[in-house]
Amino acid sequence: MIPEIKNHKSIRKYKNMPVPESILNEILLAATRASNTGNMQTYSIIVSKDETKREQLWTAHFKQNMVLQAPVILTFCADINRFSAWCKLNNAVPAYNNFLWFYNASIDAVLASQNAAIQAQNADLGICYLGTTTYMADKIIDILELPVGVIPVTSIALGYPDENPHLTDRLPLDAIVHHESYREDSDESILAFFSEKEALPAMIKFVAENKKDNLAQVFTDVRYKMEDNLHFSQKFLDIIKKQGFL
Amino acid sequence: MIPEIKNHKSIRKYKNMPVPESILNEILLAATRASNTGNMQTYSIIVSKDETKREQLWTAHFKQNMVLQAPVILTFCADINRFSAWCKLNNAVPAYNNFLWFYNASIDAVLASQNAAIQAQNADLGICYLGTTTYMADKIIDILELPVGVIPVTSIALGYPDENPHLTDRLPLDAIVHHESYREDSDESILAFFSEKEALPAMIKFVAENKKDNLAQVFTDVRYKMEDNLHFSQKFLDIIKKQGFL
Repeated sequence: MIPEIKNHKSIRKYKNMPVPESILNEILLAATRASNTGNMQTYSIIVSKDETKREQLWTAHFKQNMVLQAPVILTFCADINRFSAWCKLNNAVPAYNNFLWFYNASIDAVLASQNAAIQAQNADLGICYLGTTTYMADKIIDILELPVGVIPVTSIALGYPDENPHLTDRLPLDAIVHHESYREDSDESILAFFSEKEALPAMIKFVAENKKDNLAQVFTDVRYKMEDNLHFSQKFLDIIKKQGFL
Repeated sequence: MIPEIKNHKSIRKYKNMPVPESILNEILLAATRASNTGNMQTYSIIVSKDETKREQLWTAHFKQNMVLQAPVILTFCADINRFSAWCKLNNAVPAYNNFLWFYNASIDAVLASQNAAIQAQNADLGICYLGTTTYMADKIIDILELPVGVIPVTSIALGYPDENPHLTDRLPLDAIVHHESYREDSDESILAFFSEKEALPAMIKFVAENKKDNLAQVFTDVRYKMEDNLHFSQKFLDIIKKQGFL
């Protein structure tokens, strides 16, 4: 397997060392080589290196230390503005301000981000995806001054690693892959799929620290709670509307 | 740059040659090594090799020849079912049947797909993303028997290439990348960004064949028309609702 894929780890501690311009440029070029809908490239990448901007982003991203430590934050955005502006300048009527194109453009932004992530690791850099991008899209829109037609989809922190964590666990491939049609798994199969994860010392510790009966309850009651999920769902839908896609 | 990224081309003609099981397995494993939200792996991959299934998928995917020719179609789905079932078996109340988790799971499915795409190319296979996945999600749900909680996000055709197309053009990096905050481009800049694309012989031919004044009009009037965009937008929103995420 390609080493950058096989050995991928999320890096949450970074050295105080800038990313050379030539390396950053290669990462951004790699991002743009990804497949995209109709080769319209309806996405943009915002590069944050300025300390003040990164501090603002750190606040938005739930004050996760790595956001402040990493010398570069890349924010991948769905963006129909550039393409629509070009259409209007050509007496063509664009109609990409709708949910379909919000979703198409989101997919394209994510494909670009994964190319960037893999190319970064090829240059001995570490990365970490910031899932908080969707939760805090409104704040990120303000910080990065994103106009209507543009929504942040995902972000990666980028820098030289100052830690070397173990590979994280994954469910068995049989849990993820279905052949020809979707397989409804039995209770026994489901429990077996997650048993290895539940037995990991780090997970056992996680359950104890959170004073829960089991790992599933840590997810539902602590990490990704119903009230938060419903709150951020509605908030993100409102932002999609505000940015002109609904 | 990593050769699989640098030389990526969408392959639309495939040899009549199966993909060896060991290679397919490595591609699927590569997919699961991608970053994902909370390491919950809320996605599934459906492997279609059966001729009847691929013929049904070909019909759904606007009868694009490559879908029939490619020996394998991988459909990457947002899937909260496995994780939610595990929660319920552990007396934990899952709350992932909402828009936020549709979107989180979609992002994770796309990250997995791009790992698969890159690993496939490392094994001398060719791939092509099928953007028709979202347009025809209802048909694909029927064909692959996807239950509530599961939505197809993107698909890739996979097989040994029977063509060697040129690299496709990309906009200049300056068009895609913004520094520190979003840059509103002048009309002159926008026109300059697209000028190289418009001057390509293939694009000039494309405009002539479609009897349009310019390339932008080919996009707005032929390829991605307002009425289609609005139709498929509403259809996809209905499917998200039907599958339990809205």
